[in-house]
Amino acid sequence: MKLFKEAGVNIVTLPVFSWAKFQSDETSYHFQWFDKIIDRITDAGLSICFATSTAVQPAWMSRKYPNILPVDFQGNRRKFGGRVKFCPNSKEYNKFSTKLVEQLVERYGDNKNIKFWHIGNEYDNWCYCEKCENDFKLFLKKRYKTVDNLNRAWYTSFWGHTLYSWDDIVAPSGLTEMWNDNGRIRTTFQSISLDYARFMSESIFNCYKAEYDIIKKAYPNIPITTNFMGFFKPINYFKWAPYIDIISWDSYPGVNDPAYLTSMRHDLMRSLKKDRPFLLMEQTPSQTNWSQFNSQKRPGDMALQSFQAVAHGSDSVMFFQLRRSIGACEKFHSGLIDHVGHGNTRVFKECAELGKLLNNIGDSITGTIQKNDVAILFDWENWWALEYSSGPSTQLEYLKEMEKYYYALFKSSIGVDFITPDSKLGEYKTIIAPTLYLLSNENALNIITYVKEGGTLLTTFQSGIVDESDTVHPGGYPGPLRKLLGIWVEETDSLPMGVYNSAIPVDPSFKKEVKCDLIFDVIHLEGAKVLAKYGSDYYQNTPVITENRFGSGRALYVGSSLEQDGIDNVVELSIGLKKHVFNIPSNVEYSKREDENKELHFFLNHTGEHRHITWDQVNYIDLTSQKNVNGFIELEPKGIKILLRNKNEF
Amino acid sequence: MKLFKEAGVNIVTLPVFSWAKFQSDETSYHFQWFDKIIDRITDAGLSICFATSTAVQPAWMSRKYPNILPVDFQGNRRKFGGRVKFCPNSKEYNKFSTKLVEQLVERYGDNKNIKFWHIGNEYDNWCYCEKCENDFKLFLKKRYKTVDNLNRAWYTSFWGHTLYSWDDIVAPSGLTEMWNDNGRIRTTFQSISLDYARFMSESIFNCYKAEYDIIKKAYPNIPITTNFMGFFKPINYFKWAPYIDIISWDSYPGVNDPAYLTSMRHDLMRSLKKDRPFLLMEQTPSQTNWSQFNSQKRPGDMALQSFQAVAHGSDSVMFFQLRRSIGACEKFHSGLIDHVGHGNTRVFKECAELGKLLNNIGDSITGTIQKNDVAILFDWENWWALEYSSGPSTQLEYLKEMEKYYYALFKSSIGVDFITPDSKLGEYKTIIAPTLYLLSNENALNIITYVKEGGTLLTTFQSGIVDESDTVHPGGYPGPLRKLLGIWVEETDSLPMGVYNSAIPVDPSFKKEVKCDLIFDVIHLEGAKVLAKYGSDYYQNTPVITENRFGSGRALYVGSSLEQDGIDNVVELSIGLKKHVFNIPSNVEYSKREDENKELHFFLNHTGEHRHITWDQVNYIDLTSQKNVNGFIELEPKGIKILLRNKNEF
Amino acid sequence: MKLFKEAGVNIVTLPVFSWAKFQSDETSYHFQWFDKIIDRITDAGLSICFATSTAVQPAWMSRKYPNILPVDFQGNRRKFGGRVKFCPNSKEYNKFSTKLVEQLVERYGDNKNIKFWHIGNEYDNWCYCEKCENDFKLFLKKRYKTVDNLNRAWYTSFWGHTLYSWDDIVAPSGLTEMWNDNGRIRTTFQSISLDYARFMSESIFNCYKAEYDIIKKAYPNIPITTNFMGFFKPINYFKWAPYIDIISWDSYPGVNDPAYLTSMRHDLMRSLKKDRPFLLMEQTPSQTNWSQFNSQKRPGDMALQSFQAVAHGSDSVMFFQLRRSIGACEKFHSGLIDHVGHGNTRVFKECAELGKLLNNIGDSITGTIQKNDVAILFDWENWWALEYSSGPSTQLEYLKEMEKYYYALFKSSIGVDFITPDSKLGEYKTIIAPTLYLLSNENALNIITYVKEGGTLLTTFQSGIVDESDTVHPGGYPGPLRKLLGIWVEETDSLPMGVYNSAIPVDPSFKKEVKCDLIFDVIHLEGAKVLAKYGSDYYQNTPVITENRFGSGRALYVGSSLEQDGIDNVVELSIGLKKHVFNIPSNVEYSKREDENKELHFFLNHTGEHRHITWDQVNYIDLTSQKNVNGFIELEPKGIKILLRNKNEF
Repeated sequence: MKLFKEAGVNIVTLPVFSWAKFQSDETSYHFQWFDKIIDRITDAGLSICFATSTAVQPAWMSRKYPNILPVDFQGNRRKFGGRVKFCPNSKEYNKFSTKLVEQLVERYGDNKNIKFWHIGNEYDNWCYCEKCENDFKLFLKKRYKTVDNLNRAWYTSFWGHTLYSWDDIVAPSGLTEMWNDNGRIRTTFQSISLDYARFMSESIFNCYKAEYDIIKKAYPNIPITTNFMGFFKPINYFKWAPYIDIISWDSYPGVNDPAYLTSMRHDLMRSLKKDRPFLLMEQTPSQTNWSQFNSQKRPGDMALQSFQAVAHGSDSVMFFQLRRSIGACEKFHSGLIDHVGHGNTRVFKECAELGKLLNNIGDSITGTIQKNDVAILFDWENWWALEYSSGPSTQLEYLKEMEKYYYALFKSSIGVDFITPDSKLGEYKTIIAPTLYLLSNENALNIITYVKEGGTLLTTFQSGIVDESDTVHPGGYPGPLRKLLGIWVEETDSLPMGVYNSAIPVDPSFKKEVKCDLIFDVIHLEGAKVLAKYGSDYYQNTPVITENRFGSGRALYVGSSLEQDGIDNVVELSIGLKKHVFNIPSNVEYSKREDENKELHFFLNHTGEHRHITWDQVNYIDLTSQKNVNGFIELEPKGIKILLRNKNEF
Repeated sequence: MKLFKEAGVNIVTLPVFSWAKFQSDETSYHFQWFDKIIDRITDAGLSICFATSTAVQPAWMSRKYPNILPVDFQGNRRKFGGRVKFCPNSKEYNKFSTKLVEQLVERYGDNKNIKFWHIGNEYDNWCYCEKCENDFKLFLKKRYKTVDNLNRAWYTSFWGHTLYSWDDIVAPSGLTEMWNDNGRIRTTFQSISLDYARFMSESIFNCYKAEYDIIKKAYPNIPITTNFMGFFKPINYFKWAPYIDIISWDSYPGVNDPAYLTSMRHDLMRSLKKDRPFLLMEQTPSQTNWSQFNSQKRPGDMALQSFQAVAHGSDSVMFFQLRRSIGACEKFHSGLIDHVGHGNTRVFKECAELGKLLNNIGDSITGTIQKNDVAILFDWENWWALEYSSGPSTQLEYLKEMEKYYYALFKSSIGVDFITPDSKLGEYKTIIAPTLYLLSNENALNIITYVKEGGTLLTTFQSGIVDESDTVHPGGYPGPLRKLLGIWVEETDSLPMGVYNSAIPVDPSFKKEVKCDLIFDVIHLEGAKVLAKYGSDYYQNTPVITENRFGSGRALYVGSSLEQDGIDNVVELSIGLKKHVFNIPSNVEYSKREDENKELHFFLNHTGEHRHITWDQVNYIDLTSQKNVNGFIELEPKGIKILLRNKNEF
Repeated sequence: MKLFKEAGVNIVTLPVFSWAKFQSDETSYHFQWFDKIIDRITDAGLSICFATSTAVQPAWMSRKYPNILPVDFQGNRRKFGGRVKFCPNSKEYNKFSTKLVEQLVERYGDNKNIKFWHIGNEYDNWCYCEKCENDFKLFLKKRYKTVDNLNRAWYTSFWGHTLYSWDDIVAPSGLTEMWNDNGRIRTTFQSISLDYARFMSESIFNCYKAEYDIIKKAYPNIPITTNFMGFFKPINYFKWAPYIDIISWDSYPGVNDPAYLTSMRHDLMRSLKKDRPFLLMEQTPSQTNWSQFNSQKRPGDMALQSFQAVAHGSDSVMFFQLRRSIGACEKFHSGLIDHVGHGNTRVFKECAELGKLLNNIGDSITGTIQKNDVAILFDWENWWALEYSSGPSTQLEYLKEMEKYYYALFKSSIGVDFITPDSKLGEYKTIIAPTLYLLSNENALNIITYVKEGGTLLTTFQSGIVDESDTVHPGGYPGPLRKLLGIWVEETDSLPMGVYNSAIPVDPSFKKEVKCDLIFDVIHLEGAKVLAKYGSDYYQNTPVITENRFGSGRALYVGSSLEQDGIDNVVELSIGLKKHVFNIPSNVEYSKREDENKELHFFLNHTGEHRHITWDQVNYIDLTSQKNVNGFIELEPKGIKILLRNKNEF
């Protein structure tokens, strides 16, 4: 407790994995041991993020009700062990987990220090058992009503898959349509696999929702959350978001991840509920344990990463773990307090320094949000469908393409939201939608209307190809976007990554020749103008980048995977050039939060050298020093500056 | 239909995967929907290749009779899904598939437009279930009569495998003797695995045969086929060929395959029934969907590949698929008619142009065959045995070695047949038999007699090692070929591919030093003369290439894996130098078809530049233009020329 | 038999895999066929190493009692096939195997030619079946007494693994806590997996012990052995050694293994019972069959490898196999007698020459042993624990680190024993203990006492981290060794192998800057002095190599993985410089054996050139020529010399 205080800790999450300690058999519960912990924490004045402990069912329960245990992709029922290993559709899991939550709510709900309820932990439990297969049938009945509709949606005439009864449905897995192709899960029936992904995301959500309802009923005013994991493919977080009162997530950047990827993940998480701040629920004080090699965070990096979260909308900086455990697999994952047991370590001292700073300036930041003119369309269903697709290339990855567009914005210090294709698009000046392969007619109309009414769309190859059932839009690519884009894509060629063609400028707005690879659309103009053309191959001199005026707006199309310089150029074209308020050197990250009264400008120096920010003379307050600054600040190596300005001064 | 006509389509294959649509439960059949299709096709005057639709059993059947579903190499029973997924020894499959075929024959057999019956589709369904294990026992009883014979053939004294009863037999799989070693299936008991391969090839054949008998009985004069897949390891096509009235196959060259590999596959397929043309049953109009990346065929490539088939003996050019489907996993596999729905595409236009040409010149070609002086010995049993072998090297691949010999012939414009070791060999001047590891005494005698009577044999390291049970021929390598070759191989050394020794000329017929790797036989001369010797290592200066006069013939031996120049040299030595009728530049493929009355000479320009063919002045007719040519023709880039000459003019 | 004599064979091992031939059903045994073999061998005067034939149970037994068959890591029960495939805890296996041994002992035990009994063969049969799971519970009951103790030792509060009953225990496997990560087996619960490793090693030992007791009771004076496999991770040979009367092992150096690795393995095997010679039970005369490529041993290599065994303590040179079998998977594994059937081969002649030499000089060698001043601490439990650890790096391998230290000693011609951390350490001047991650307090005390009393310890990063339950020693790294080493390791950084820092000399005893990678301890001095410091990164200029005086001894610590030059330097520092009796050129291996009366000095020339050994003039006898030599001998390329000197001459 003393060290907590030294470190500026003011909230703790618990008890995350204590179900087994709470419940020793079907009817026996044990809370006394935990009462003492709660009392101590309450006495110390710490806030509590109360976790429901349902992420791992007890060993005895797994033994007695083996159906709780999930069946894996290859059809093998697991035995007790590991983490988050239960079938999401298990009746017994549902019964026992809700019963536990009821008792936790009853016993601890009144504790005034509880600031949040935290359900489960990093949900991640797809299953392929018989119960799931049966529930999948119910899911499909609800979605398709009749078997005929299902046959049509799934295109079962292919390879003799016609179904006559709901009973004929088989959960797709490694024993049926799917296989693991060196880490990429592939399928011979995209629509079946896609529906199973929808079903699994929903099944797991139902586990969350069952607990949510109990807590909400008893304490409607305490926000409820569960910790998300960024771009986590198995679960469609956008679908869950309405029932997450405050988004929280666990940020564990890979050792070699560039800074922009971390920010991109924060932006996605913030965008799940974009009018509110989120919580950084977990990060490591220094090293992790699960990677191939686990580097220490270099001095200053932990603070820098903490402020990335804050700059992009987090109202908290929380850590896993407080004290390094001495056993099991996370004992070499950093904690604030190391195995040595005292606070005289670099890691503790950096955390304590951060805690002090946040305690000083936190109130000026919390509650502010981001407001952006640019959005990236991001759709989990598209992620699944695009990467289940058989052809044109297994090297095509949704995130890889999207990251290049994000990076272009990041380098230009332009804030970005992530939105789904069915969002209200009109709030944004520019929408970027890379490889929007799966696109329903409804969502296509949403986009078309957006452009017609003055918006700018930037999209790419492999967009508008299939509908929500992964059935090709007839009438030529890019399907419902053909008119909007003013082009017809006759062919989509594919070559191995690293075999390059080039995009050669035709219009002066596209500034220089760049390389492109992976996918090569052969494009016919149907109203659009050419910005760049191919440099070689049988489609030499045909369009590779086009722009079309449509209604009051514009629609740009990129027919091949450009190198970053080319992406930077098309992004610049899509957003229009305007001078930034600040002159920001490269590798200094910029982000802005605001509310009705004030603006906060964050500058994070990702270099190991001093950097200067300049601007036309206007007064800001340097939040850390509380001094006025005007036209110039200096950033220390890995330094952080936050400039505040009251809006009524404008 | 209009587009079919435009494209010159005159035959269609159907209904390949319609079992589920035909049969909705054990007794209910539905043919009316198909009657309409057949009527339309018949009315349009199109020929029909009538497929029996038995490649995928219906979902309801798989559910009701789960024993129909195969068990995989790791012992897991599959669930319904994917393609060609039934146990070949399933009684229920047999019952239901033959019942369907009986009804199709009865209902549609009289249709005059049916030109072929097409059974199943790309058979490929090894299984490891209990039923297969039991049938394997029957197979072995038939082959070996007594358990003692089996123990001897399998060499079961090794590792305590002695069997006392047929009941002791276990189907070899990943749960017993075998494992998957990075894609290479390995085994600790070669003879067991080899017999299982024989058994599986035969079991699957029985599926085909059951349908064949029904159709043949009803319509003895309509040719029956099933679509093969070239060098497809799991099935010994030579064993099936007597019951395939006309060979047909599906040619899908890999994007990076050199042209000669495609021709090699055509030659194998033609050789299955070498006195008759075959059918190119499937090829893609442009791109496939299942590869890592799926390139479009460049302009001209599809026509070139079509004529490769024709030049090597095909009497048809058929495509999969006519119309690009809009769902499931082959929706991005090219079709004549694309998703756009009209014929105004490059791919359609190339197909239509080809169709027109074939309609014009087809009659001059069909029915002609190839007659060759050179044959390559190719044996599926040897393929299995050589690659199941534990030692000397897992990098040794049968096809890789053979391809080098084929390529030498291809470059020299020499036609080649593939034959089995038990064929009549005397028809050929030269027989090339790379790595003929498995060789029964009977087949060895066949080869010895062939050479004695004047033939030339070219063989290599790892030949004559084991008999048909994978038991080593005693008395020193290369076993029964030792006398014929006039050598004794004392040791076989092996080094990783790419660690080179060299073959240095000793006899002037071997022209220059070449590199060699992988396998290094240490050879003692027993009558043969040395053509080349090793350049280094402890066997420096000992023979690596030898030639032996035997009876009226010659037998050459290559003791290491030579680089292509060396292969070219030994192939030249084995066939003897003779001037070709035509002067053919490199990368122009040549092939010849003929019948009693005429010769057809095919020239395929695989380059993107103009090429000339010259010859001593003789008149030919250029088949396309129907003009006389004499001594000179020019080939367009990727161009095709066919010269015809009536034999009575000679 | 004639060839045996020619080859100098004087002992044969049999019948290794004959259980199936001995026993045809539950009650029928057949020994007559074997009587004849034994008679022939006895008549020929050959000694017998009598094998109990229990390595593979008969096929009929596997069929009748499928529970004998093991269940693999993924939970699949195997079927009969392969080798050494039985569950070690199978009751039926136990019953039938001991019954067979009883009969073999009764029938053949009196044969005077039996020199050794040889139980099983290359034991290697982990299992994950229900019976094993149940026996694991008994094993744990015995080890931990109460479930509370178990919960504590396994740290089950982590991830909700608390157990309430012995029944809750699950055998750890690919279905629970573990997975195969590209060949490295990983676990989320180190302590569970570690106990399972202990349990499996003990279970398999019990198979051996059951047979041992029967033989020992009947023939207490005939030594009993089983053939080990060097650094074989699944079995803790040190635990077995007390019940192995004479250690024997099978040496199959990989084709690319440097010579020192073979010697290292011999040294480990010898050290299992370090006061006695061991037996080289198997080696191949030339090539193996199971590798990716199987090279022949170059001329001279087989003899050189044979003398490596002898030089490091073997009293035998035995081969697998006498005659190359003609079937199954080892038919391309070399034999003394090749498939050709005569002795006129290079391989046979080399063996015969060796046999002759050994018959001449063997008596002077057998019975002598090694006495060394230096030992390497090697602990199987540490091997398991270190490589099960989650963090800091999956690239850290116990053997890789240890081999570098062994190599430094090998190059310096310094003999070394392998000892366990609970051994009597005082016999050694220097003890080298790389990455001694798992170290109980008792064993730590043993080491501390050793240094206090004058010994020298050289240890490295990742030492003293956890106790025998894989629970972290509290109080700062390196735990119980902190005082001894006079350092505190605050952080352990990790970077990918090949990303280098450097160790820069601070003390003149560390001679030159070297590279280091993989692990980087951040070290605080607590009494130790710095020998070298880091050259870069945030811990630049902090200590990387330290030395601490402690009691009458010294303790050196290496905080990062040094390149070989650095290892050579710290090893030299740890043993102290002293001039060797002989001047030994590089790549000539030296080893010494001795007894009360004499010394034998072995020199093995691993180069292909002549080498000279010189020394200050003292008389030795060249054992081969029986001549006196003084101050100088010459070694042929790949040559061997053994110098003998009677101790009473000193």
